[in-house]
Amino acid sequence: MTASYRLSEIASQLGGRVLGDAEVRISQIASLETAQPGQISFLTNSRYRSQLANTRAGAVILAEDDAESTGLPRIVSDNPYAYFARVSALLNPLPEATPGIHPGAFIGANTKIDATVSIAATAVIGEGATIGANSVIGEGCSVGANVVIGCRARLYPRVVIYHDCMIGDDLIAHSGVVIGADGFGIAMDQGRWIKIPQIGRVVIGNDVEIGANTTIDRGALDDTVIEDGVKLDNQIQVAHNVRIGAHTAIAGCVGIAGSTSIGCYCRIGGSAGILGHLNIADHVEIAAFTLIGKSIHEAGSYAAIFPFSTSAEWRKNTVHLRHLDELVRRVKALEQEFETIKQKP
Amino acid sequence: MTASYRLSEIASQLGGRVLGDAEVRISQIASLETAQPGQISFLTNSRYRSQLANTRAGAVILAEDDAESTGLPRIVSDNPYAYFARVSALLNPLPEATPGIHPGAFIGANTKIDATVSIAATAVIGEGATIGANSVIGEGCSVGANVVIGCRARLYPRVVIYHDCMIGDDLIAHSGVVIGADGFGIAMDQGRWIKIPQIGRVVIGNDVEIGANTTIDRGALDDTVIEDGVKLDNQIQVAHNVRIGAHTAIAGCVGIAGSTSIGCYCRIGGSAGILGHLNIADHVEIAAFTLIGKSIHEAGSYAAIFPFSTSAEWRKNTVHLRHLDELVRRVKALEQEFETIKQKP
Amino acid sequence: MTASYRLSEIASQLGGRVLGDAEVRISQIASLETAQPGQISFLTNSRYRSQLANTRAGAVILAEDDAESTGLPRIVSDNPYAYFARVSALLNPLPEATPGIHPGAFIGANTKIDATVSIAATAVIGEGATIGANSVIGEGCSVGANVVIGCRARLYPRVVIYHDCMIGDDLIAHSGVVIGADGFGIAMDQGRWIKIPQIGRVVIGNDVEIGANTTIDRGALDDTVIEDGVKLDNQIQVAHNVRIGAHTAIAGCVGIAGSTSIGCYCRIGGSAGILGHLNIADHVEIAAFTLIGKSIHEAGSYAAIFPFSTSAEWRKNTVHLRHLDELVRRVKALEQEFETIKQKP
Repeated sequence: MTASYRLSEIASQLGGRVLGDAEVRISQIASLETAQPGQISFLTNSRYRSQLANTRAGAVILAEDDAESTGLPRIVSDNPYAYFARVSALLNPLPEATPGIHPGAFIGANTKIDATVSIAATAVIGEGATIGANSVIGEGCSVGANVVIGCRARLYPRVVIYHDCMIGDDLIAHSGVVIGADGFGIAMDQGRWIKIPQIGRVVIGNDVEIGANTTIDRGALDDTVIEDGVKLDNQIQVAHNVRIGAHTAIAGCVGIAGSTSIGCYCRIGGSAGILGHLNIADHVEIAAFTLIGKSIHEAGSYAAIFPFSTSAEWRKNTVHLRHLDELVRRVKALEQEFETIKQKP
Repeated sequence: MTASYRLSEIASQLGGRVLGDAEVRISQIASLETAQPGQISFLTNSRYRSQLANTRAGAVILAEDDAESTGLPRIVSDNPYAYFARVSALLNPLPEATPGIHPGAFIGANTKIDATVSIAATAVIGEGATIGANSVIGEGCSVGANVVIGCRARLYPRVVIYHDCMIGDDLIAHSGVVIGADGFGIAMDQGRWIKIPQIGRVVIGNDVEIGANTTIDRGALDDTVIEDGVKLDNQIQVAHNVRIGAHTAIAGCVGIAGSTSIGCYCRIGGSAGILGHLNIADHVEIAAFTLIGKSIHEAGSYAAIFPFSTSAEWRKNTVHLRHLDELVRRVKALEQEFETIKQKP
Repeated sequence: MTASYRLSEIASQLGGRVLGDAEVRISQIASLETAQPGQISFLTNSRYRSQLANTRAGAVILAEDDAESTGLPRIVSDNPYAYFARVSALLNPLPEATPGIHPGAFIGANTKIDATVSIAATAVIGEGATIGANSVIGEGCSVGANVVIGCRARLYPRVVIYHDCMIGDDLIAHSGVVIGADGFGIAMDQGRWIKIPQIGRVVIGNDVEIGANTTIDRGALDDTVIEDGVKLDNQIQVAHNVRIGAHTAIAGCVGIAGSTSIGCYCRIGGSAGILGHLNIADHVEIAAFTLIGKSIHEAGSYAAIFPFSTSAEWRKNTVHLRHLDELVRRVKALEQEFETIKQKP
């Protein structure tokens, strides 16, 4: 059961201006289409005003411009989407984890684990590791030797952090995340690959979230760095010595090759890729499925998506891509011959 | 050691018409090329009839049209490939798991676990979870609070299912699968990302198989839904609030962005992607490496693959893609000038 | 603390010619830019000679051609990059694992585990498994029934190896690796997918490294094979019955579909893909993000990358791809009409 709040209580905690019945009780958040009485919904785009007319929601969050679009009890905010996020967090607090170390966990020597930390059965904490206040370590997590984790971290089951990595406050790491595995460093010698020891660490700032099965490799010589506020979706691969700037958000299945540096406030679409040793400026947006093969020095939006069509259309058009250079030559030849004709008397 | 069956016994269990010696004993399945006496092989494509002549197989499964292509003992079926699958299942039953909870497993309060369930050492079952008859939970699995799993589920080692997810009968989930991690929901507010709580669930129908390290995120408000008979290969990412229709099969490394709805009986090739908030009709086939950026309303086959060539050829042709618009204008200009010339007396 | 070595001691262990003060003590490796006294750096590309002038390194590894480019103590090698890898391994030995089975591990019946093997808490070793001398099995690893692992294997936490797989000496498998899960084998029958049992194994040679969260499926009938010296980065998907030839190196996020055979000494870039049932010759290089859809019979370099641009440029140019066939026809028409004109008297 989630708790319930009066609209006035919500606004007194989170700000915003209440219009209509401030005493209505709200216990959950929902979309305009599915909301029931007792639930609060939100309008973030005036295009959906028509849904507002039919919603059964008990209250709505909306922007100043939409303030008079409904007679329902409502909270007016200058950022309704962020307000919705805050209301949802208020109504859906994470389950409290009981502080303490489960007897089925394994704790190495010389660890510094705050008394408020919760460690689940089958978690393994390595020698010399430090875990800050109110952190929660799920079952099956492996925290390597000398790892430092800040306060309020939440490691879902089966997260692995290799030795010596440093992590700030408020980390959320979902199941299957691997932080600090060896980067892909090999040198060819007389027909065999020799492994290059990966002696850097992964260093992660505050307020970072990492999605399920995402991997972040440790540095080869220096560190791999994830700055404050970075948000990573699932199944992302971050190679050794990458730096991801503060507040950059990266969608699922992206691969970032070694030693690339990405700026702050970038947004990278799903399954995109960035080659190694590049620099990407701040405020760059990269479309889904786009490979970035050169550094980007200007903020802006970049893309490289091959447009889809029916397979028949695709075959018909695509066959010419292998002859595009020839086509360009043919056009040039026509232009030249044409010029000759025009000059004829 | 696998058991052995007479050809007649196989046909009496699985149907089909036996030709030739029905008493031959069969203990394993193999390809035409590698089969040994005592093994049964199959011909699913008349193109490979030549292999039939040389096979050492003790018996063969084939279609009506090929029934007289060999003198070997044989079973005639209208779907030899499916028949082969059934024979293989008969000859290679899964190892029986001993019912019971290993003393090295950790079981939360108020669970409902059928007496026939097998739970391995180091598995952790959350408070209030339900697990149906004859299910097998491998080592290191994490089943969250209030999860419901149907009958005959097989969770290979290290599967994680987050709290409250609902799963039908006959699930197969391979190692590293993560079901119900938070979707990628964030709202920008004054220069920082705020997390949007993901309060939906993952709801999975009957007879679903999920490949190793595939991730299926829980819904933001409503549920993420995987319908009956869906087959997912490895390393697939299914974002929050996606719906995958019944009997759709998806190959490895595909990414499906949030709130997209995919129809029934679709087939999606490896490393393909589908952007968010789209609708894909039933019976759509999507080629490998294809990004779908708009809804598809018609059944059929779709593609967007950039054709490969030697790097030298690729460089020569691809450089023109950045000037394609200019090329089209040049052709248009030629056409117009040409028209002018033709109109000259 | 890493140990320290005199330059002369390093050369006597690893070869190479010492120039300058052979008595200088070296305790770590670093890049030219960040190296401190007491650290050794390396020059692998004459382009970076300028960095050599300013380095604070105590010593340098370089090639014969660069031997006189600095007065620093130095080791001359015919392969400075490989030499650097060897020095780094000398200075950064893996932490010794204590031999023995942790009481929190679970060991099945009839296993053959060498007395020098180290098995961590929460690891589970299946019935009949064999593990060779000096191997280290991390916490949460799952080694299936009858698996054979050679000597000096290092399984980082949470590696899963399914039953019956065979692995040579010197395997390194990073966290989240899944070896031997079922391949994606299904047959459509009367509107439902039937599972095809995957009865092959994964067979891995000597000296193989596998990156975090990479998956290698077991064969359908025959085995999936990874030959000696193969190096796989993170998040790679290797489907059933694939063969990867010796000393091939594959970057992150690559997907290889079923029954494809890749030659020796290939190099495959990140997020590339190879369709099923193909043959790739030895010494083939495949660019990042490239889908290979046909067999490659010649060594060489291949690519299929769509070039990125600003989204505005991309839109302007890409719209024509759907009309490329029409454009080619228009050019052809112009050429023909032009020919007619030229033939006019």
